[in-house]
This record gives sequence, C-alpha cells and structure tokens, in this order.
Amino acid sequence: MSKAKLEYDSLPYPTVVVVGGGFAGLEIIQGLNGKPYKVLLLDKQNHHCFQPLLYQVATASLSADSIAHPFRRTIAPMANVAFRMCTVQRVDPPAKLIHTDRGDVPYDILIIATGSTTNFFGNHRMEQEAMQLKSISQALDIRSDFLQDFEAALYAQDEAGQRRCLNFIIVGAGPTGVEMAGALAEIRRTVLKREYRELDSDRMQIWLVDSNERVLKSFSEKSSAHALGYLESMGVNVKLGARVASYDGEVVNFQDGSTMEANTLLWAAGVKGVLIPGLEAGEVPKANRYGVDRFNQINGLPDVYALGDVALMSEGQWERGHPQVAPAAIQQAQLLVKNVIRKSKGEAMTPFTYTDKGSMATIGRYKAVVDAGNLHFGGLIAWLGWMFVHLMALVGYRNRLQVLMGWAWKYMSWKNTIRLIIRPYVRRTVQQAVEVPESA
Amino acid sequence: MSKAKLEYDSLPYPTVVVVGGGFAGLEIIQGLNGKPYKVLLLDKQNHHCFQPLLYQVATASLSADSIAHPFRRTIAPMANVAFRMCTVQRVDPPAKLIHTDRGDVPYDILIIATGSTTNFFGNHRMEQEAMQLKSISQALDIRSDFLQDFEAALYAQDEAGQRRCLNFIIVGAGPTGVEMAGALAEIRRTVLKREYRELDSDRMQIWLVDSNERVLKSFSEKSSAHALGYLESMGVNVKLGARVASYDGEVVNFQDGSTMEANTLLWAAGVKGVLIPGLEAGEVPKANRYGVDRFNQINGLPDVYALGDVALMSEGQWERGHPQVAPAAIQQAQLLVKNVIRKSKGEAMTPFTYTDKGSMATIGRYKAVVDAGNLHFGGLIAWLGWMFVHLMALVGYRNRLQVLMGWAWKYMSWKNTIRLIIRPYVRRTVQQAVEVPESA
Repeated sequence: MSKAKLEYDSLPYPTVVVVGGGFAGLEIIQGLNGKPYKVLLLDKQNHHCFQPLLYQVATASLSADSIAHPFRRTIAPMANVAFRMCTVQRVDPPAKLIHTDRGDVPYDILIIATGSTTNFFGNHRMEQEAMQLKSISQALDIRSDFLQDFEAALYAQDEAGQRRCLNFIIVGAGPTGVEMAGALAEIRRTVLKREYRELDSDRMQIWLVDSNERVLKSFSEKSSAHALGYLESMGVNVKLGARVASYDGEVVNFQDGSTMEANTLLWAAGVKGVLIPGLEAGEVPKANRYGVDRFNQINGLPDVYALGDVALMSEGQWERGHPQVAPAAIQQAQLLVKNVIRKSKGEAMTPFTYTDKGSMATIGRYKAVVDAGNLHFGGLIAWLGWMFVHLMALVGYRNRLQVLMGWAWKYMSWKNTIRLIIRPYVRRTVQQAVEVPESA
Repeated sequence: MSKAKLEYDSLPYPTVVVVGGGFAGLEIIQGLNGKPYKVLLLDKQNHHCFQPLLYQVATASLSADSIAHPFRRTIAPMANVAFRMCTVQRVDPPAKLIHTDRGDVPYDILIIATGSTTNFFGNHRMEQEAMQLKSISQALDIRSDFLQDFEAALYAQDEAGQRRCLNFIIVGAGPTGVEMAGALAEIRRTVLKREYRELDSDRMQIWLVDSNERVLKSFSEKSSAHALGYLESMGVNVKLGARVASYDGEVVNFQDGSTMEANTLLWAAGVKGVLIPGLEAGEVPKANRYGVDRFNQINGLPDVYALGDVALMSEGQWERGHPQVAPAAIQQAQLLVKNVIRKSKGEAMTPFTYTDKGSMATIGRYKAVVDAGNLHFGGLIAWLGWMFVHLMALVGYRNRLQVLMGWAWKYMSWKNTIRLIIRPYVRRTVQQAVEVPESA
C-alpha cells in the first residue's frame, strides 16, 4: 500500500459519501477538498459527463471524450477524496450503511446527487422502442442509429420505405428536443445533401412534437417565438398541441388519431429523479424526487442530503421545486458544502435561495436564444454567449480545447466528421437480451 | 433522385467493385477517381480505420475518431465512386455477381482488399477468452477492460487477487505486441501511480511472450536488441522462447508447464487473410491468402484481383508472399490501378516488384527503432520519424490535427485523459449471446 492511501485511511475525520458525480457531486467534492472530511465519491461510471452537450455527441459534432472527464483525473490532487466505481443498491439509514454491488460502505454524512433519468411516464413499450439522451452511450446509440438509417435508406425498395428511414420524430420541445431538431436539420442541409448524393435530402423530415402550445415552454414567450422561427426557417416540422400516444418502433400514433411511419423516435418529454431503495421515507409522492428542507436535508432522514435534479425543495416562487438544470444543482452544492461545515462546527446553517440566472438554448449556427432576467435576445450574440458559457463550464482544459476545436471544425467545414458507426446500434429487442451493467 | 446520382448510374463505364476500405481499398479508389470506371466500394464499416495507431486508442492516448475517417467523406468529391455499407457473403465468379446481406451486386472487375484478421490458429477457447486488436471496437474493448481491471483491483480481497487483475499478458512480440507492452508500461508509471494511490503500482506486471528468441523478429537484429533494451528498461517482463498453450480467462498455461493468473491476455501472435466464400479456387492451401500473379489477379479467376494482406504473391526474395503491412498493400494498389487501366486499353501490364522501405516501431517516449535499408537506429530521432510518418499517412486533415494534439497532450501531461469506460467490456460469454453485426 502506498503512503497516500495510508494517509487517506487514517484521516481522523467523518466520512462523507457522495453518490453521483454529475454537476452537484463534482461541486461538493471540490468544495470539501482539503476540508476535515474523508470524502468518498461513488458512481457507476468512471467519468463525469457534461450533459448539456450530449446532443452534439449524438449528432456527430463532438467526440464522446471531449465532453467526458475521468473522476480520478479530477480527484488526483485531492488527498482527502477517494473514488469507487460501483452501483448503489440500497441505503440503510439506521445503520448508516450503503449496500453496493461491490460491498458495503459506511457513512457519517450521505449526499445523494444521483440526478435524473428519462421519464417515460409508465409507457413501457415507448421505453423499449424510443431513443433517449441522458448518457454518453445513449448519445452514441443515437449517432449510430441515424447513420444506419441513412445507409438503410439507400436500400429501401420504394419512396415510402425511404421516408420511414428518414423520418425523425422528437417528442418534447424543451432544450434537448429543440437542440436535437436544429442539429439534425443542419445535418440534412450539409452532410446528407453532399455525401448521400443518391438520396433526395427532402425526404428526410424532422418532426418536433409537444403537447404544449409553444416550444421551450420554460423560456420567455419572446424566446419561444424566436426559437420557433429558427426551427421553421431550418425546415423542422413543429407540431404543437399534439401528443404521441404510442410507438411500436415503426409507426407513431398521435392522440388525434393520425399516424406516421418512422424508424427513429427520440423521447425528450421529461425526466425523473434517480431514487435509491431504502430512502422511500423521503420521497415526495408522484414527484419522483426527494423532499428536502432549505438545507437540502431529506425530510425525516438526518445526515442524508439530496440536491440537484433528484431533490425537491419548496422555496419562494419555486413551490413545486427548482428547475432540473445544472445551475440549480451547482448553487445547492456550493451552499451545502458550507452548511455541512457549519453544522460540524455547531454553527447555524443558511437556508438556500435559488438565483435564476436565466436560460439559453441553441438551434443552429448564429441561431440561439437567451433569457437573462428581463433581457431576451437571439442571433449571433446569443449563439456566441451560449458557446462561451458552455466552454467555460466544461471540466478540464483538454475538454475545453477539444470542444473548441470540434466547433471550429464543424462550423468551418460543415462536415460533422465524427460520423463513425463504431458499435452498430442493435434494435432494442436484441439489445435487451444482454445485461449490460451501464444500461441504467 | 438528385442529379449526381443519375450521373453516376448512367456512366457508360465498366463497374469496378472494391471489397474493403483499408489501405489498399482506399488507394484503389483514389487511383480510379476520375477514370472511366464506375467504382463501388463495399465495406461492413462506414469508415476507414488507421490500424497502426489502434494500440493508442486501446491505451487511452487517442480517441477513436482521431484514427477513423468516414468513407463518404473521402468519396464526396469523386463523381464516379459510390459506397455501400454491407457484408459480402459470397462471390459468384461465373455470374460476375456478389451476394451481400443487402442484395446482389454485379461487377465487371472485382478487387478483393479485405485485409486480415487475428489468427488464433484454431484455438477456439483462446479466441473466446483473449482480447485482440484489429478493429476500433476491439481497441475500445481493451481500453474498457484494463480500466475495469484497475477498478476491480481496488476490491480484490488479497494480494493474489490484486495481481490477477493487474497481470497483463501479451502474446506475440511483433510491432503490435511491443507497442502495447510499452504503452501499458507508461500507463503504470504515470496514470496508475498518480491516480490509483490505493494500489501498489508494482503489482501491475506486463508480460510479453513470444516463441521466438527475439522481439520484432521481422526487424534487424540490431533493432530487436534495441527494442528489448527499451522494454526491459521500462519494466516489461519479456519471455522469449516461450509458448502459451492455453488460457481459460483466468489462468495462462505455458508450454513448459508453468502457469500464471491473469484477467487479461492480448493475442497478437498472428493474422490471417479474410477470405470470401466462392473464391476457394484461388486460395493457397494452409496460407489463408489468395494466390495472385504479379498483376494481383487471383490465380484461375479472371477479372478478380486481390491485394494487400489477403494476397500472396511470390516475387523475388518474397517467395512466401510480401509482409502483411500497409506499404505492401499501398504499392500493390498503386500498380493495380495502372494495370487495370492498361488492360482496358489493350496495353501490356507491368509486373509488381515490392520496394521494402523499412520498418519502424515505437516503444515509448523517445524510444523507437527504425530499419531503413542498411540503416538501423533508435532513440529520439527514430521516435520523431515514427510520429512524422504516421501523421502524414493519416487520412484527412482533421485526423492529423487530432492525433497531433492528442500526442502533444499525452507527452506533456502524461494523463492519458481518454480513460472513459463508456461501454463496459462484458466478459466474452455474455457478449457472445448477442449477434452484433460488426463482430467479425
């Protein structure tokens, strides 16, 4: 055993276990670095994933490694932080013990930062047949899937078959849906037109479906209208006030009785918190999140905290919880670090107040919308702002450089060169036969 | 249908079908670009893979997309070249027809450039249990496998269990084996030491096994000795004159009766040509290659050519065929293009003569060996030469820039940042339950 390990083990500090290394988890670790705690990060992946740019991995603009960062790289300089790759199976709060697939882990303070996953609202068939975009492997599946559909379209026997391969249905017009729709429209205009000369690129149709009456419903009305204009100018078919009732992998049934054939449907219509067995006492009925007080402690579970997407805190205007976005998770994490330290010292904790710094979404080159307070703007400035904010938020210099280079290359060449089908996307029925540990 | 497609279809030229887009296939396509032939490239992947750098993808130095290039990107400017992604199942030479999983393809001239795959010499158990390194997905499997082994070592109950996780056996001390051994030794010295503080890095042992009495047996004796010196200075255990008899996924049995426990064994002890049913008439018994004349025509099969790894041409000192390396494939392709054109014009074809420009292999930073004619040298100059030659040989500016950046980052930071377990490597028994089309 090396010296460093012995030092960590013998640290005379309470153990803080952080479950999940998303935005909240990483912020907690960075905050507790060098403080009198033994910090242990548990995650089923070995890397942090920068989710806001996942859609660019899915659309072959960025490589997976430019938005992912190994946890061990982050914690390498942190003497009081360790990492274990494992799957948490159950928490036993009375015993202060976490059961994992690799053995038990005791804790003094437990911080749940498991984030969220796609919410199919109980529609199991949809869950089987639809694509989703919450992890890197899902993004790579989408990439392989649409590229395989392009190749398959060349073999289609007739126009209907070709259209089925080239119809892309996106359910949910939030930021993910809008960004995916815009990126696919760019691919049609550039890659499909130039490099699939045998195909009529007009046969590729992108449908963005939402039951609301506007896209980006969490944004200002002005930005929604702006985004809708961008999408329509790029040839995206926006179907508002429409609901998808079912999908069997080939045919989409809308609630108004209409149908459409499509090989690909991306479900981006909602998320739910990733809950852990054993903590049911803290769950808010029907919300799929843990109810927490203003200090992020889960209701009724002392020394167990939850934050970010998986936590539901009623505060001020956010009666039904904060938006499930990175800034809320990061702000909660920053305060929670201070509060944990204060509590250890017997000092009073500070209640959390969310500062909404605004929202931004990008639709295409020079096409983005920004809401910041009473300011709503779009166009080139919004687009540059979006790029700048996302570049700065990435973890690690290498990732920033990689993403910057990726964007420079894409917007100068329009080649989306990362169009590699490395692991072919195997249709869901086959895929489910294998128990791949990361599938959750 | 777009104009370009109609133009291709109506070209009044004979059809040249190229099976396989490796070094030979790409060179053929580039040579026939703009010439009076309709050229159709068939490949089961949608991208060219730069195999000489696969080991750097496997060891997390380069990302997969920096050494792969989409075929459609290459052929985009070539009006008389088309691409179809499919698996060739059988050739019917009398009917001049290729049967694929996507339908039949007629040809006037057929060029087989299918390359080679790992040769397990009939040892099926070894084929199931060993890792191999001939495709990008195999490289990513190796990457996931060794990173999972590092994580698993942290959970091992005792020293023996830890050593089993950290023993890496490489069978075959050709360039692939030597380069992998060197890269793993660098990872032990840097990543393992720095970022797995809980592990004693000396417990990671790399074993390079070969039945020959020297490493890099196709190189000069001087370079072999040089390479051996480098490997030993980096702490690689080189076992020469030793044969691996069997491996069950946990225990390696050597032919001298000794055994060793290891979770990972990489088989790099040989390759064999990828043959296509229907062309048996041209196969050389026991060689796993097609016998070709000096014009690369398969013996007895008019208008069917083979070249590169899958072809066996007796010529001059190369009585038992040329080495299965990129330069031989590229030289044959360059001449074959000229000969096909000459034959069409009724001119005499030129017989092929191989120009051996030498060999090079890299073991670590500043550690490489070069054989060029009577010149044998190592060290910094050889290492820089190796990097320059490989950079220049890559397809596409983006890939060159990516690889250059990757190397700069690696050798300045020693961080091998691309340590992402994106799709966990599932042990072979489970994996075989799925019919993944690219597995070949």
